[in-house]
Amino acid sequence: MPFPDLSPDVVAEYRSDARAPEDFDAFWSGTLAGARGDLGLTVTPVEDGPVFQVSDVSYRGFGGHEVKGWLIAPPGASSVVVKFIGYNGGRSFAHEHLFWPSTGRAVLVMDTRGQGSGWAPGATPDPVGSDPAHAGFMTRGILRREDYFYRRVFTDAVRAVEAAFTLYPRVAVAGGSQGGGISLAVAGLVPGLSAVMPDVPYLCDFWRGVTVATRDPYLEIARYLAVHRGAEEAVFRTLSYFDGVHFAARATAPALFSVGIMDTICPPSTVYGAYNAYAAPKQMARYTFNDHEGGGPFQEMRQKDWLAGVMPA
Amino acid sequence: MPFPDLSPDVVAEYRSDARAPEDFDAFWSGTLAGARGDLGLTVTPVEDGPVFQVSDVSYRGFGGHEVKGWLIAPPGASSVVVKFIGYNGGRSFAHEHLFWPSTGRAVLVMDTRGQGSGWAPGATPDPVGSDPAHAGFMTRGILRREDYFYRRVFTDAVRAVEAAFTLYPRVAVAGGSQGGGISLAVAGLVPGLSAVMPDVPYLCDFWRGVTVATRDPYLEIARYLAVHRGAEEAVFRTLSYFDGVHFAARATAPALFSVGIMDTICPPSTVYGAYNAYAAPKQMARYTFNDHEGGGPFQEMRQKDWLAGVMPA
Amino acid sequence: MPFPDLSPDVVAEYRSDARAPEDFDAFWSGTLAGARGDLGLTVTPVEDGPVFQVSDVSYRGFGGHEVKGWLIAPPGASSVVVKFIGYNGGRSFAHEHLFWPSTGRAVLVMDTRGQGSGWAPGATPDPVGSDPAHAGFMTRGILRREDYFYRRVFTDAVRAVEAAFTLYPRVAVAGGSQGGGISLAVAGLVPGLSAVMPDVPYLCDFWRGVTVATRDPYLEIARYLAVHRGAEEAVFRTLSYFDGVHFAARATAPALFSVGIMDTICPPSTVYGAYNAYAAPKQMARYTFNDHEGGGPFQEMRQKDWLAGVMPA
Amino acid sequence: MPFPDLSPDVVAEYRSDARAPEDFDAFWSGTLAGARGDLGLTVTPVEDGPVFQVSDVSYRGFGGHEVKGWLIAPPGASSVVVKFIGYNGGRSFAHEHLFWPSTGRAVLVMDTRGQGSGWAPGATPDPVGSDPAHAGFMTRGILRREDYFYRRVFTDAVRAVEAAFTLYPRVAVAGGSQGGGISLAVAGLVPGLSAVMPDVPYLCDFWRGVTVATRDPYLEIARYLAVHRGAEEAVFRTLSYFDGVHFAARATAPALFSVGIMDTICPPSTVYGAYNAYAAPKQMARYTFNDHEGGGPFQEMRQKDWLAGVMPA
Amino acid sequence: MPFPDLSPDVVAEYRSDARAPEDFDAFWSGTLAGARGDLGLTVTPVEDGPVFQVSDVSYRGFGGHEVKGWLIAPPGASSVVVKFIGYNGGRSFAHEHLFWPSTGRAVLVMDTRGQGSGWAPGATPDPVGSDPAHAGFMTRGILRREDYFYRRVFTDAVRAVEAAFTLYPRVAVAGGSQGGGISLAVAGLVPGLSAVMPDVPYLCDFWRGVTVATRDPYLEIARYLAVHRGAEEAVFRTLSYFDGVHFAARATAPALFSVGIMDTICPPSTVYGAYNAYAAPKQMARYTFNDHEGGGPFQEMRQKDWLAGVMPA
Amino acid sequence: MPFPDLSPDVVAEYRSDARAPEDFDAFWSGTLAGARGDLGLTVTPVEDGPVFQVSDVSYRGFGGHEVKGWLIAPPGASSVVVKFIGYNGGRSFAHEHLFWPSTGRAVLVMDTRGQGSGWAPGATPDPVGSDPAHAGFMTRGILRREDYFYRRVFTDAVRAVEAAFTLYPRVAVAGGSQGGGISLAVAGLVPGLSAVMPDVPYLCDFWRGVTVATRDPYLEIARYLAVHRGAEEAVFRTLSYFDGVHFAARATAPALFSVGIMDTICPPSTVYGAYNAYAAPKQMARYTFNDHEGGGPFQEMRQKDWLAGVMPA
Repeated sequence: MPFPDLSPDVVAEYRSDARAPEDFDAFWSGTLAGARGDLGLTVTPVEDGPVFQVSDVSYRGFGGHEVKGWLIAPPGASSVVVKFIGYNGGRSFAHEHLFWPSTGRAVLVMDTRGQGSGWAPGATPDPVGSDPAHAGFMTRGILRREDYFYRRVFTDAVRAVEAAFTLYPRVAVAGGSQGGGISLAVAGLVPGLSAVMPDVPYLCDFWRGVTVATRDPYLEIARYLAVHRGAEEAVFRTLSYFDGVHFAARATAPALFSVGIMDTICPPSTVYGAYNAYAAPKQMARYTFNDHEGGGPFQEMRQKDWLAGVMPA
Repeated sequence: MPFPDLSPDVVAEYRSDARAPEDFDAFWSGTLAGARGDLGLTVTPVEDGPVFQVSDVSYRGFGGHEVKGWLIAPPGASSVVVKFIGYNGGRSFAHEHLFWPSTGRAVLVMDTRGQGSGWAPGATPDPVGSDPAHAGFMTRGILRREDYFYRRVFTDAVRAVEAAFTLYPRVAVAGGSQGGGISLAVAGLVPGLSAVMPDVPYLCDFWRGVTVATRDPYLEIARYLAVHRGAEEAVFRTLSYFDGVHFAARATAPALFSVGIMDTICPPSTVYGAYNAYAAPKQMARYTFNDHEGGGPFQEMRQKDWLAGVMPA
Repeated sequence: MPFPDLSPDVVAEYRSDARAPEDFDAFWSGTLAGARGDLGLTVTPVEDGPVFQVSDVSYRGFGGHEVKGWLIAPPGASSVVVKFIGYNGGRSFAHEHLFWPSTGRAVLVMDTRGQGSGWAPGATPDPVGSDPAHAGFMTRGILRREDYFYRRVFTDAVRAVEAAFTLYPRVAVAGGSQGGGISLAVAGLVPGLSAVMPDVPYLCDFWRGVTVATRDPYLEIARYLAVHRGAEEAVFRTLSYFDGVHFAARATAPALFSVGIMDTICPPSTVYGAYNAYAAPKQMARYTFNDHEGGGPFQEMRQKDWLAGVMPA
Repeated sequence: MPFPDLSPDVVAEYRSDARAPEDFDAFWSGTLAGARGDLGLTVTPVEDGPVFQVSDVSYRGFGGHEVKGWLIAPPGASSVVVKFIGYNGGRSFAHEHLFWPSTGRAVLVMDTRGQGSGWAPGATPDPVGSDPAHAGFMTRGILRREDYFYRRVFTDAVRAVEAAFTLYPRVAVAGGSQGGGISLAVAGLVPGLSAVMPDVPYLCDFWRGVTVATRDPYLEIARYLAVHRGAEEAVFRTLSYFDGVHFAARATAPALFSVGIMDTICPPSTVYGAYNAYAAPKQMARYTFNDHEGGGPFQEMRQKDWLAGVMPA
Repeated sequence: MPFPDLSPDVVAEYRSDARAPEDFDAFWSGTLAGARGDLGLTVTPVEDGPVFQVSDVSYRGFGGHEVKGWLIAPPGASSVVVKFIGYNGGRSFAHEHLFWPSTGRAVLVMDTRGQGSGWAPGATPDPVGSDPAHAGFMTRGILRREDYFYRRVFTDAVRAVEAAFTLYPRVAVAGGSQGGGISLAVAGLVPGLSAVMPDVPYLCDFWRGVTVATRDPYLEIARYLAVHRGAEEAVFRTLSYFDGVHFAARATAPALFSVGIMDTICPPSTVYGAYNAYAAPKQMARYTFNDHEGGGPFQEMRQKDWLAGVMPA
Repeated sequence: MPFPDLSPDVVAEYRSDARAPEDFDAFWSGTLAGARGDLGLTVTPVEDGPVFQVSDVSYRGFGGHEVKGWLIAPPGASSVVVKFIGYNGGRSFAHEHLFWPSTGRAVLVMDTRGQGSGWAPGATPDPVGSDPAHAGFMTRGILRREDYFYRRVFTDAVRAVEAAFTLYPRVAVAGGSQGGGISLAVAGLVPGLSAVMPDVPYLCDFWRGVTVATRDPYLEIARYLAVHRGAEEAVFRTLSYFDGVHFAARATAPALFSVGIMDTICPPSTVYGAYNAYAAPKQMARYTFNDHEGGGPFQEMRQKDWLAGVMPA
């Protein structure tokens, strides 16, 4: 099976030439300023199990819209991992998120607005409509940065971390694929995190992602451009405000990344593009013969060991 | 190639057992009442070509949202065909809609809100967000009839016909696939049409469509239900307010349908389900060895001949 | 999407016409007698986590061959679920099996011999070779019941339950797909179980499975027969000793099954074939629009509730 | 989606190293000399519509064989676009060719002999048989230049232009894919054209087309060579007489090309190969994210504007 | 894998309701009368091997066109099997036809005109052109029985048998797929054959073939009809003169058929349609789990045994 | 169709950088020493045909396990070709191996242990089990060289040649794909062969094969490594004892190779890797437009001619 991106010999050296727009920071500080205010956080115990306590979480995200989540806590937890979900999935059931609780930490799972009907059910609407968009979420509002779908999602995520800090003194963020991309955004926008764990992260180095990936969802953008001939400049201008490479360059917390060298959804060069830009201490776990499944449970084992060093349970 | 639905010997006899909810008419009269008011119609000439006059059209659809369209008129036209677009397409360019103008009639092309990025570009946003939905439009707001995507689209279509009547005394409606489904909705909601021409119509007899079709977009609903286990009753309850079979049963204008007996997107039984329920004079053009392309240009020839009899140019 | 098996209206009535060979019970009592003897059970703690205790398990299965497993136990557990794995998977890591421990019960995960390289790693060899066999496990030794691969696997499973009873007074069995098929075998061979939970079980009603399924692994048998023209009688004779329908007819413990009505790997009629033959109290959880993923986490929720009634934590 | 040919940064620089055989011009002057003589042109009005006049056209092409076409003319047209059809299609119905008439020009659509059963019906037989050939038209007579299918087609096309000049003083040629390739052949063989508009042209730089394209029909040649091992030299010798690169080098009329940078049927380098060889004034319309659909209606808009400058309606 | 046609329980009872046109026999006697005359047979030894003598064969087929073949003879052969080739293949090399020679009989392999570029090379042109036809051979000349491709092929085959009788006193015919269909045609047109061996024969019960097969080449006809809407009656009228069912009903020599019950190219019901119509002594070899590969070498073994009884070497 | 490996211009220059382990020869001399002893050869005539004599062959291979084969001999043969079978196939029927007998030589066909259920039936069990392995044979025992499947197969092959020498004074070896790989192993392990004919050989330059091939079975190894993350070094260490490149470097007999430049199963660079390492006189037959079918019957013709020079019949 040919490597679908750069050869394993050289891919680790890849540096993205994506450039952040000059007003990148201003855009995000403005966006987050607009989202500040009462979190409206509610944490409602739904089940006091024999081992873990499970709570239904609600808070106000972008635009004051209600965002849902799960909080699953082992007895005596003093730290929390905020977990973001992969593309098209929702928070589903709490019992699907037991790994971090089994290590002695709480987990706060953020539901991704509007998604949650592709492979795992969600409970959070996205009340905002859009210009004509390709099926999926990648091109919703893509012609203007203010309207872009991920502006809302990344803001929701920053607010989730804000909520986490109200519950526990130490907070890490983690997620795979889109969840990894959201983790990176948060890492670049929020100070004081204990750790960042992006697995096979999506939403990094968009031009390369769109022109190297052979499976969705980067390709939603390519198909949109095939219909909207001439929109290329506007589209990539918008995306430049949402690129994990630029968030990585603003990160301050230690990170453990992972990458599949045969990843056809999130090409390894895009992952290294973010990794090599990452501005804080970092490690990469690399899986040579893996596609987008990356390290799977092997990576969880590695995260457990690594996190013990930077954010003990 | 096996026939993907009932055998050609018997499919024409198929009658849908879909039942309209008791308050079907109340729901729609309420919906349309809410959409009444100033059309805000503007018809802006964009090009005075050597043969046709092309205008950019705008009017207020559901919720007062702006809907776009094209009006292409030959010299001296005294009637108009309102044309609805297939799933995921937009109004694209005016020069792609020359058939009806070449027959001496104007054509008013309605842009479908939110779509127009799948294969043909559109210009009309859908400013309404939704609960978690499967990629595509079929499940947006599907848990409540008030929120369902097609409530907005069908209302836009009724308003498009209203606009057409302000421009020409005689109005026909036409469209293929989703455009055919919209035509049927209009046929059941608007009196006084001269003709209705649904080709391989979509959005008819949903249960059968979802469980017989082998290609999208009916299957978006099946995939949604695979994720939202338990939502089946709510989903089909909502859909019962949008079923072409029930609109057909309320139609008053003469109709020419077409059907592909090998249609894997809009199975022929669903088309006959609407056809056999159609309450006004009707004809069916049947294409035995065709999939969803149906009669293609053969059907246009047939429509031209048939329309000459019911709405002369 | 057409239902790939009998219509949802009638599939629940399906009764298999598979007939057990006369010496079915003799074959299995002989097989199990040959496997009796010292279990050689070892339970080696590998990690004393903050929440669960994890142990590496080893015991002697068929032929005295070493079989591996995981035991994950919450504090104070007094019952255990023995879990069997799906086709081609291995026990992988302990932290992938936290659901039952989170309900307050121990889980004992049996590694499937020889598998564990298809999607999850395993640690148990199958030291027995075979006649020419199709790639995969379904046709290894299929020409003689004594040599058939599942004779060894089912015996390993009976021994796993035996091991479980040495550790806890109450034992349930569970598993999805192949794991469900193994659960049924155990249910028919071992008395005294508290509960049986086969999800979308495989290895039931082989003739129907082979001639209705459209995805592997039942089709390995069809492809074998396409090469070994003339082996049909011998093959189905062997399989008649391994059919979940016959094990179900000998079961004595209460059971909760699940089925996907669109299952293309384990067709729903084969599941109902076993279910309707099941000789003890039983319930069926049915997922109309699901393929082989069945109920997924919804079914886990349902199992948790149901098991609380028959084997409290 | 990876670019299937050279990177967009460099593809525009590509120059074909295909070399015309020394007797290329002699071959074609001989061929055309043999085809001269009475055109036998008939133009039979079939419909005098409210807007356009449609005529059935017939003339003598290669070997004196009858070739069919449509002539669609707006009132007062003084120029004509001769349109050639894509691979496997026929002239179909006249109402499918309204674009050029809507700009005030006549269009003469040439039916491609023998084709017209793949996606659009045709009416022109190819009465000439062939040596064993792969399914399709690409290898019919490919072992000898005199027998090759496109010798007949290109000659038919030259004769179509000859017919066009008998009807209107100014003539342009256009076509997509195979139609673009035929346009180029005509551009190299016929003097006095007003304009040439090849879209995503086929039949250019055969070696590169055969070894870069991933979709038919260039691959018919590769499959032929896989069967006829050893025929490579003879095959490419024949093709060297039919290569758009060589016709381009002999062109005299201004041209507007288009290219899809993701074209998997007619790879962009082959298009640039012809473009960069084109000997007269030229422009290229480039669509970065498009496959073989190229610019679609966007390109028609551009052609309308461009043609207004070189052949006003 | 579901059986792609009727269930194995009932398929053997299938009787075709295809009806021969009244002038079927007249059409064929006229056709063959037109082909009579000097065979122009040449048998040129090309290699006198250590075991077999191989000759290049040439004779005049339909229209007096030259048809090629191989004759491979063991020492002392006194009978010959005339072998016809599957769709799109040619006679290829003599050493690919050693099975019958190894049984002590000569084999005369007829090259199929025009084919021989799909998977095995051929050497016989088809000098006759056609109306617009779908890629492939199934629709060449299909609108008129006089022009249909198989009129020429079946005539070539009758002439091949005529040639065989000039070389050996006893002649059998055999072939798989298209070769089986040709065998049946010959069986119905030529008296005095010793044996007929059609394997998984093609060209039988066309309506059923076209509407049951899921793989080419029957589907070429369906695709042609999808383009040429309205040609259905003419097409099936032509095919009624070429249906193996009708040739079978006129056969006089003993036959051994074979059938794959999972055949998706030549559905088993079409094979039984011909078999049950076969008018002379017959046997069927049936392969339940095989697709179009049928019995493969198993069937050759069976043919060897059977032929020993009806045409000893 | 793009060339799936290096360009045809440079691929012939490819030299593998695979390095044999230091104890490669020791490993194999030890292995073969362990396999020495009574061959237990039996040659049982099963059919004395009119042309060839066919015998069922049995001998003791690796571990003393019985291996089956066919011997097909023309009258008076004084040399033999030992033929090895492609992946997943078995010896099938004797009449499928008539090519070499038709040239006046005997052929001894070795059945491949355990295989023979993928496309051609076999009769030789592999009585040795394995660690968890991916479906197929490529990863059976792959973690330790002593356990690896091909250690047994190559030893069986050496023993087959030993058997051949007891029957005839001159012995050649041949085979396609896996059969070609086995031929190379034998060429490196057995002195005194007259000729070696590996067609599109498999099992050469494993790293490159695994990372260039796009179709199985090299990819079984990639999929195994995707599950067994971390096993890469151990796996390629084992494979280094079984690499055709290293056997080629030890060969002493003249060889005729063949290669398909579009081979997606055994990439041409891997074939040239072995070829360029081959230490004895050699020729390469190259098929530019062929995938894994390579030269097919063209190559048989070439082998016949070539073998006449080095091992006359």
